[in-house]
Amino acid sequence: MNILDIIAKKRDKKELNKEEIDFFVNEYTDGNVTDYQAAALIMAIYLNGMSNEEITNLTLAMAYSGEVLDLSKLGENVVDKHSTGGIGDKVTLILMPVVAALGVPVAKMSGRGLGFTGGTVDKLESIPGYNTQISVEEFIENVEKIGISLMGQTLNLAPADKKIYALRDSISCVENIPLIASSIMSKKIASGANKIVLEVTVGNGAFMKNIDDARKLSETMINIGKLANKEVVCILTNMDEPLGYSIGNTLEVIEAAEALQGEMEEDVKQVVLELGSYMIKLAGCGDDINENKKRMIDCIDSGNAYMKFLELIENQGGDVSYINDVSKFENAKYVNPVLSDKSGYVKEIDAEKLGKISCELGAGRVKKEDIIDNQVGLIINKKIGDIVEENEILGIIHANDKDKLKKAEGELRSCFTICEEVVHKPKVILEILN
Amino acid sequence: MNILDIIAKKRDKKELNKEEIDFFVNEYTDGNVTDYQAAALIMAIYLNGMSNEEITNLTLAMAYSGEVLDLSKLGENVVDKHSTGGIGDKVTLILMPVVAALGVPVAKMSGRGLGFTGGTVDKLESIPGYNTQISVEEFIENVEKIGISLMGQTLNLAPADKKIYALRDSISCVENIPLIASSIMSKKIASGANKIVLEVTVGNGAFMKNIDDARKLSETMINIGKLANKEVVCILTNMDEPLGYSIGNTLEVIEAAEALQGEMEEDVKQVVLELGSYMIKLAGCGDDINENKKRMIDCIDSGNAYMKFLELIENQGGDVSYINDVSKFENAKYVNPVLSDKSGYVKEIDAEKLGKISCELGAGRVKKEDIIDNQVGLIINKKIGDIVEENEILGIIHANDKDKLKKAEGELRSCFTICEEVVHKPKVILEILN
Repeated sequence: MNILDIIAKKRDKKELNKEEIDFFVNEYTDGNVTDYQAAALIMAIYLNGMSNEEITNLTLAMAYSGEVLDLSKLGENVVDKHSTGGIGDKVTLILMPVVAALGVPVAKMSGRGLGFTGGTVDKLESIPGYNTQISVEEFIENVEKIGISLMGQTLNLAPADKKIYALRDSISCVENIPLIASSIMSKKIASGANKIVLEVTVGNGAFMKNIDDARKLSETMINIGKLANKEVVCILTNMDEPLGYSIGNTLEVIEAAEALQGEMEEDVKQVVLELGSYMIKLAGCGDDINENKKRMIDCIDSGNAYMKFLELIENQGGDVSYINDVSKFENAKYVNPVLSDKSGYVKEIDAEKLGKISCELGAGRVKKEDIIDNQVGLIINKKIGDIVEENEILGIIHANDKDKLKKAEGELRSCFTICEEVVHKPKVILEILN
Repeated sequence: MNILDIIAKKRDKKELNKEEIDFFVNEYTDGNVTDYQAAALIMAIYLNGMSNEEITNLTLAMAYSGEVLDLSKLGENVVDKHSTGGIGDKVTLILMPVVAALGVPVAKMSGRGLGFTGGTVDKLESIPGYNTQISVEEFIENVEKIGISLMGQTLNLAPADKKIYALRDSISCVENIPLIASSIMSKKIASGANKIVLEVTVGNGAFMKNIDDARKLSETMINIGKLANKEVVCILTNMDEPLGYSIGNTLEVIEAAEALQGEMEEDVKQVVLELGSYMIKLAGCGDDINENKKRMIDCIDSGNAYMKFLELIENQGGDVSYINDVSKFENAKYVNPVLSDKSGYVKEIDAEKLGKISCELGAGRVKKEDIIDNQVGLIINKKIGDIVEENEILGIIHANDKDKLKKAEGELRSCFTICEEVVHKPKVILEILN
């Protein structure tokens, strides 16, 4: 077998078999296939497509290119959750304690963020003391002991995916459904769960800009799941505006703590309940989705979910006094409101631009080596459909640098489109596919 | 401008403009665009194609990526000749002295061969003393003085083409008409001529395996010529069997010397007369193709062409006594005939395999660094359509190594397919396009 024949086959629109895909992934990971040969093959895949079987074989080859987390000690029903990402997405922090409190084992390895805001790991690390870099043994023990653990990605999971993703980024081959699907699923499979709830975000703040692409991506991932023996549910959610009211690591931890104490934004609530009810179902803890939602609400109202959150933090060395009294978190140097210059209804919010502003304030990384500033970020006071009066607060900027503050002030207002006609609140949950 | 946008544009089947193609070629030549980015773009070009304007812009960008030979001192009518290659192709050695003797200025820079047999430069160097590495000044002076010079490629002609060609070879993107056409034409344009006669070979011993592809390639090159202000004529010739009777450097020089003295194989003669008559026409020395052919025959019969050949060799330091008495060339150690094991008509000859056998004997290079053995090669005694008796000689192997001789003996016979039905000689000149 040689890479030239494999490239030629895909170039000629023929289907690659499992051995050929394994050969490419393994030899590329090992450096025997060059970057330029991989680039030619990836472009041929981008343009000529892949069958469901090819996509699954690519996914599995990438998933098993490095270490694979073994969660078998936790039984067959460990459910993972993943989101294709959005602005202000603090769902994991809220959702996981709720389902854990309802008896669903939660063993989640999360990555760091690149662009926009930090990932779940970055957010957790803004809680003083919280240790994301525990051993896999400790991770499993935590789940066995208290039913939940959230840690950083310490294992070398799916290195082939990392290498191929970086390459795609530098050859204009990112936006391709088979390649996106196999990238996401390879990481999830390497993360050890047999059942996966995937939130596929749709809108101007998401990777998928329209519902058709989101559907195609979802169907592709569900198909990979079927062929790879993983149960997959995809929940399509709207990402035309940021989720909840905060963007930035500490700000989002505070929002999560408040949400778990019952003060939850409507859009966050809908996403949490939808994802959670399917997680409970996949875990074999309840087939009735509406009943599961009810149990989740009860779990939050009773304080059990919040207690599980505190237990998680304490168990991993975090200082829960910051959660119990969020005023203990040190504020950023500048906390400045931005006012509306007119009255009306919020028609559109440029979520992607808000993410960029937050990132420039220091809440996200542009390069992998960048250090995140946990204090900075944005508070969004108005959402789509809200009434806004002239001089009312649109948002609040949390900044540690005067120049960056000024720049953000200039840009934030332009993220809001205000009109005179009544605007309806957008639908949050768009579709469920499984 | 950046390479990611350029790749994305071609990926999305859009047409690249001149600035974008120049950017790619120049930045890739300079190393600012990486091999993997170039690989992705080349694959996108392979799969999505290029318009005639794009092909021409790519050709010109590659042509002007390095030095360009300035032949303006020789006037407007310098005609170059190029062949897409074949087995036993000694046409340049015979054709150029004939047209030079008829007043067409011949200033030809030739490359070395890779695979099969040597290039024209390798063949010339098998004549003791012949200097292919002269300066460009001397080259031009030679043409001004005696009307002809054949030299090696000393200038850094079309380095972008060299780099892109090597890349294509390692990413399965060689067989693509727009890329082949621009590669050939870029080298020809860098070689300085305004008028070009291209021999496009068709058949099992050629790059183009069928007439349709050869036509497409020809039309593409003619179009490049039109847009780049170069007059181009394409002559499609049959390459289902080797050209003439010899394969190997010294053996081909001997055949050329004999041909110029009137003993020319029929297929060689047809190719020489066809290409030459169009060269004469493009040079403005005669519009009537049949009349031109007649003048060429007269020029050979009168000995003028042969005298021009001797003059060329002497002028570049070669020892003409070897040409006047070819028995002076030292024979290879083993000169062994291979006999037919049956009677009949020669139906097919595997030209490509004969080229490979000759190359393995040492007549060609597998790697650029290989040293060519000028003495070795093959003599083909039977051509398609010939009658052959059992035990009659099919070919003669000239070898300097006993093991290689044995191997060649085993393989040579299998290159000939002999049948009982009468076989007609194949047509040599298939089509003329301009």
